[in-house]
Amino acid sequence: MNKASVGILVLGFSSSAHASGNEASNTAWLVLASVLVFFMQAGFALLESGMSRAKNAVNVMMKNYMDACAGGIVFWLLGFGLMFGSNLTGWFGTSHFAVQEGEPWDFTFLLFQMMFAATAATIASGAMAERTRYTAYLIGAVVISGLIYPVFGSWVWSGMYGGQGWLASLGFIDFAGSTVVHSVGAWCALAGILVLGPRLGRYAADGTPRLIPGHNLSLVALGGFILWVGWFGFNAGSSLEMNVSLGLIALNTHLAASAGALGAFLAQRGSSSPVLLTTTVNGSLGGLVGVTAGCASMQPGFALLTGLVAGFVVVFGMRLLDRLQLDDVVGAVPVHGFAGVWGTVAAGLFFSGDLFNWERVGVQLLGAAAAFLWAFPLALLLYLLLDKLFGLRVSSQDEQRGLDYAEHAEVGYPEFNLAQTFDADALPGRVGK
Amino acid sequence: MNKASVGILVLGFSSSAHASGNEASNTAWLVLASVLVFFMQAGFALLESGMSRAKNAVNVMMKNYMDACAGGIVFWLLGFGLMFGSNLTGWFGTSHFAVQEGEPWDFTFLLFQMMFAATAATIASGAMAERTRYTAYLIGAVVISGLIYPVFGSWVWSGMYGGQGWLASLGFIDFAGSTVVHSVGAWCALAGILVLGPRLGRYAADGTPRLIPGHNLSLVALGGFILWVGWFGFNAGSSLEMNVSLGLIALNTHLAASAGALGAFLAQRGSSSPVLLTTTVNGSLGGLVGVTAGCASMQPGFALLTGLVAGFVVVFGMRLLDRLQLDDVVGAVPVHGFAGVWGTVAAGLFFSGDLFNWERVGVQLLGAAAAFLWAFPLALLLYLLLDKLFGLRVSSQDEQRGLDYAEHAEVGYPEFNLAQTFDADALPGRVGK
Amino acid sequence: MNKASVGILVLGFSSSAHASGNEASNTAWLVLASVLVFFMQAGFALLESGMSRAKNAVNVMMKNYMDACAGGIVFWLLGFGLMFGSNLTGWFGTSHFAVQEGEPWDFTFLLFQMMFAATAATIASGAMAERTRYTAYLIGAVVISGLIYPVFGSWVWSGMYGGQGWLASLGFIDFAGSTVVHSVGAWCALAGILVLGPRLGRYAADGTPRLIPGHNLSLVALGGFILWVGWFGFNAGSSLEMNVSLGLIALNTHLAASAGALGAFLAQRGSSSPVLLTTTVNGSLGGLVGVTAGCASMQPGFALLTGLVAGFVVVFGMRLLDRLQLDDVVGAVPVHGFAGVWGTVAAGLFFSGDLFNWERVGVQLLGAAAAFLWAFPLALLLYLLLDKLFGLRVSSQDEQRGLDYAEHAEVGYPEFNLAQTFDADALPGRVGK
Repeated sequence: MNKASVGILVLGFSSSAHASGNEASNTAWLVLASVLVFFMQAGFALLESGMSRAKNAVNVMMKNYMDACAGGIVFWLLGFGLMFGSNLTGWFGTSHFAVQEGEPWDFTFLLFQMMFAATAATIASGAMAERTRYTAYLIGAVVISGLIYPVFGSWVWSGMYGGQGWLASLGFIDFAGSTVVHSVGAWCALAGILVLGPRLGRYAADGTPRLIPGHNLSLVALGGFILWVGWFGFNAGSSLEMNVSLGLIALNTHLAASAGALGAFLAQRGSSSPVLLTTTVNGSLGGLVGVTAGCASMQPGFALLTGLVAGFVVVFGMRLLDRLQLDDVVGAVPVHGFAGVWGTVAAGLFFSGDLFNWERVGVQLLGAAAAFLWAFPLALLLYLLLDKLFGLRVSSQDEQRGLDYAEHAEVGYPEFNLAQTFDADALPGRVGK
Repeated sequence: MNKASVGILVLGFSSSAHASGNEASNTAWLVLASVLVFFMQAGFALLESGMSRAKNAVNVMMKNYMDACAGGIVFWLLGFGLMFGSNLTGWFGTSHFAVQEGEPWDFTFLLFQMMFAATAATIASGAMAERTRYTAYLIGAVVISGLIYPVFGSWVWSGMYGGQGWLASLGFIDFAGSTVVHSVGAWCALAGILVLGPRLGRYAADGTPRLIPGHNLSLVALGGFILWVGWFGFNAGSSLEMNVSLGLIALNTHLAASAGALGAFLAQRGSSSPVLLTTTVNGSLGGLVGVTAGCASMQPGFALLTGLVAGFVVVFGMRLLDRLQLDDVVGAVPVHGFAGVWGTVAAGLFFSGDLFNWERVGVQLLGAAAAFLWAFPLALLLYLLLDKLFGLRVSSQDEQRGLDYAEHAEVGYPEFNLAQTFDADALPGRVGK
Repeated sequence: MNKASVGILVLGFSSSAHASGNEASNTAWLVLASVLVFFMQAGFALLESGMSRAKNAVNVMMKNYMDACAGGIVFWLLGFGLMFGSNLTGWFGTSHFAVQEGEPWDFTFLLFQMMFAATAATIASGAMAERTRYTAYLIGAVVISGLIYPVFGSWVWSGMYGGQGWLASLGFIDFAGSTVVHSVGAWCALAGILVLGPRLGRYAADGTPRLIPGHNLSLVALGGFILWVGWFGFNAGSSLEMNVSLGLIALNTHLAASAGALGAFLAQRGSSSPVLLTTTVNGSLGGLVGVTAGCASMQPGFALLTGLVAGFVVVFGMRLLDRLQLDDVVGAVPVHGFAGVWGTVAAGLFFSGDLFNWERVGVQLLGAAAAFLWAFPLALLLYLLLDKLFGLRVSSQDEQRGLDYAEHAEVGYPEFNLAQTFDADALPGRVGK
C-alpha cells in the first residue's frame, strides 16, 4: 500500500485520520476496481472484433474470453508468486504460488493483480488478429501472463511479501503500469506481428498499405467507452486503498483520455487525412496509457498535456508501423507501446513539485528500455518456438475463409448476408510470412 | 447481515474494529452491488438475443427489459414481504409489503433483493426464447418474481425481520443463491420448455437435434462478459456489508468462472466436438452459478475445482437435454439448474475447515431437492394455466415469421439483408406441441 | 455536501456517527459514481446509434465520443468555474477556472461535475441526429458544456466556493438535475431541431409522419440498460458523500425507471398502438429523468408514481412533437425535457413530510420555466449562428448518402449488405429547411 504515498506526498495532502480507509473499505475498493479492470477485457474484445473482419468475429471473442480465463488461472498458479512473492534478489519472487491460505488482504490483492495480468496478455491479441492459430495464441497468452509480465513486474512492484525490485530501488515511477503492463504487452505484440507477417493483402507488392476495414465500428466505439470506464479502476485502483487522492487520479485519467482523442483529432486534421473513428478511439486509449504511469503524481494540466501528446504519438506511430509494413490490426503497439514509453517519460518530466528533473527522466527511460529488452526478445523467442512447434499462422486458405470457419466451426453472424470484398484482391499482396 | 459471518468465521478472519464497515459504507457497498446485479439483466438480454435468430431480436430484448421492470415492481409490492417479512412459520413472510417507510437500511436491502428477483425471473426467458407469446411470458415472469422465487427464498434467507426459514434452521448453505436464485429459475425454465415444446425444426422427425445458430455471437460474448462483471456484485454483495472477506469471495468467483470456461473447453476437446463460443461462455456461467453457494466458505483451489466441474456439467447437461428433445435455447437449465445443484453440493463438500462432512452434504442435497419440488410443479401448473388461458406458444406461422413481426410490429435490423435459411427446412421437424 | 441533507432530514434519518462516511470513503464513492455517469455516454451513443440508420453509425459514435472529450476539457477550462466558482451575484461563478491546484476534494468534485456537463451536451446529439454537420455539432456541444449548462447550474447548485444561486435561495429542489441537466439539454435539443428542420422524408408533403426505423434495436436496448446502470451513479452520486440515504435514492431511481417503462407500455396499449421497444426504453428513461429531481426526498410509492406518469408523458410528448413536425430522432425532448419538467414538479408535489405544498410547487415551476427561458433562446441563437457561419445541416445529397460517407470517410458496417429502402421515397417529402 505504499505506491499511493508517492502521489499523496507530492501533492501535499495532509495525512489526517480521515485520509484513508480501513481494511474493510480498502477491500471493497479493490474489489470494485478489479471488477472495472476485468470489464476492460470486454472492451478489448469489442475493439479488436470491431476492427477485424466478420469472418473472424468468433475467433476474436474466443481469444479474449479464454486468455482471461487461462491467464487468470496461470497467474494464480505461477505469475503472482513470481511477481509479488518474496523477492530477495530484486529480479523475481519466490513465494505465494497457488495461494490457498492467507490473510483476507492477500486474496483481495491477488484478485486485483490477476486482472492486470490478463490485460497484459490481451494486448497482443489485437495486434495479431485475423491470422494467428488459436491454440498457439492461447499458449502465448499463458506464457505472457504467467512469466514474461510477472517477472518484469517484480522489478517494479514487488515488495508486498519482502524484498524490492531493482527498478523500484532506483526510484522508477510507474503508478499503474504504462510500462509494466502496457509496454510489456505491446512489445510482446510487436514480436508476434514480426513472426506472423502481415495479413494477406494488407500491403501491396510495392509496399503500399491497403486498408482492411473493420466489420463493426459501433463495437469499436463501445469497446473504447468500456476500456475508458475500466481504466478508472486500473488507475485509481492502483492506489490499493480508499484514500483522498483517488479523485485526482481519476480526474487525470479522464483529462488525459479526452486530450488523447483531441490530439488524435488534431493530428489527423493537421495532416489533411480524414478523422477516423478508429484512430480517434485509439487516441483516447493512447492518452489513457500515457497517463497511467504518472496519474498520481501530476497536476491536471500536465495530465491533459500528457494525453494530448499521446494522441499525436498514436497517430504518427500507426503511420510508422505502416511504413515498416508491420501489420498491427488494432494499433496495439503505438497505443500501448509508444504511448506507454511517452507516458513513462512524462511521469518523470511532470512529476509534481519537481518538474523536469532530468535525473528522474533518465531513470524513467532506463525502466522503459528495460521493459523492451526483457519482453521483446523473450516474446520473439516464444513466438518463433510456437511457430516451429505448431505453426503460429494459419494457412493462406484458412485465413481467406476466416478463422471462425477454419478454427471454431461457428460463424459470428450466420443470418446476415456479407460481402466478400476484401479477399479477392488480397491475393497478389504479400502472402504469409 | 449474518450470512457473511459464515465465511468470516470459517476462514479464521480476526474480527477487529477494522474488519467491517459502518452503516454508510455498507449502504454504498450494497448500492454498488445492486448496480452490478442489475447490469446482469443486460448480460442476460445480450446472451439470449445473440443465441436467438434475428427475427426475434426485439422480442428477446423486450422480455428482458420488461421482466426487470414488472418483476421489480411486483417484488416491491409482494415478493419482498413474502421473502423477508416476519416469518413465524419458517415457510413465508407476512410483513413489509409495498414498503413505503422504514429505516435507511430497509430501502437499501430491498433494492439489492429486488435485483435478485429479476435475475430469477429472467433465467426462464432464455430457455423459452423464440416461441413464447409475449404477454403470457410476462405474466409468468411476474409470478416467478412475486411468488415462486420469494417463497422459496424465505426458507433460506429470511430472518431480517424476525423468524427463520426451515432450510436455514437445518444449516443449509447458499451464500448468494446457487439454489435460491439459479436453480429455482432453472426449474421454472424447465417447466416452461416442457409445456412449450421445441422450436419448429429443432429436432428432426427421428429426434436428431439440429442446430439453430444464434444470429450474433459477438453479443453472446459481450453478454457473457457483462454477466461475469455483474456476478461480482451478486456474490460479494451477498455479504451485505463492506468487510474484509469480499476479496476472497470475488477471487473465488473469478477463479470458478475461469475454470468453468476451461472445463467446458476440455469437455468439448475431450469428446472430439468443436469448441463452440456459445458453450464456452456457458461453461464460465456454469462456473459462476456453481461457486455462488460456497464462494464465501471455500478456499481458492476448491473454488477453481467447483468451477472446473461445473464446466463439464454444463457441456454434458446440454447434451442430455438434447437427447430428451428438450429445446433450451440458451442452455439455462444446465447452466443454472444442473450447475446450481452441483454448486450447492460443492458448498457442502468443500466447506472450509470441515471438508467432506457428509451430513452437511446431505442437508445441501435436501435443499436442492426442495427447490426442485417447490419450483418445478408450481411453474408447470403456471405455464399450463397460461397455455390454457392465452396460449403460451405463438402459432407456427408467427414462429416462422418471427416474434418481432408477429408480436411487436418492429424489427431488429430493418436495413440488413438477412438470409432466411433456418425456416424452410424446419417444417418437416416436430411442429409445436 | 449539503444537498443530501434534504433527503436525510425529511425522511427522519437519525444523524449518528455512522450515518456518513469520512473523506476517503466519500472520495471513493464519488469516483465510482463518476465512472457510472461516464458510462452513460456509451448508453447515449448506443441508443442514438440504434435509432439512426446504418449510414450514420460512425457519425453518431464520433459525436458522442468527441463531445465527452471536448466537453470535458472545456468544462475543466471554463464551465466548472462558471458553475461552482465563487458566486457573489447568484448568477454565475467567477473562480476555479482550469483548476491546477487544490484540496483533494476539489479534484474529486470537479471530476463528478465534469461527467454531468458531458451528459447535458450529449442530449442534443440524439435529437439532431442524421443531418447535422459534424464540426458545427461539436462547437455547439462545447458551448453547451462550457457556457449554457454551467451558468444555469450556478443558479441552483453553486455554493461550494462561496455564494448561492438565486434559484437555490428560493428553495428550488433539483437533487440530481431533472431541470439542471436534463431539461437544459432538452431545450438546447429543441432549438437544434427547429433550426435544422426534419430529416428528408420524415414527414410527407401533407405533414403525415413517416417512421424512419433505427438500424439496430439490440443496441437501443443495450443503450437503455447502460443508461439505467449509469443513472444510479447520477442520482445516488449527487449526495456527494457515502451516507445511509443512498439506498433510498437508488431504490427510488429503480422503481421510477421500472414504472416509466410500464407507463409507456400502458400508454401504448391503451391507445391501441403497438408497444414499441424504442418507446418502452424511452419510457424507462423518462421515469429516470422524472425521479432525478426528487429521488432523495420522496417515498418509494411516490417515486413509482412519478415514473409511471413520466412514461405517459414520454409517449404523448413524442406524439405532440410529431404533430408539430419536429423531428427528434431519439425522443430527447419528451424524455429529457417534458419528463424533466414533470419530475421537477413532482419533486415539489411529493416532497416527503410536506405533500402537495403548492408554494413549493410554484417554486419548482419557476425553476423549470427559468431553465427554458435561459437555455432555449440562447441555444436557438447558437444554432442559428452556427448555421450562418458553417451551415448547421449537411446538403441533401450528403444526408442521403449518409454522414459516414460524407463527413467521416469511414462506414460502420463495410461487409454487411444493406438495403437502401429509406431514401428513395424520402425525396418528395419536406427537403431541408
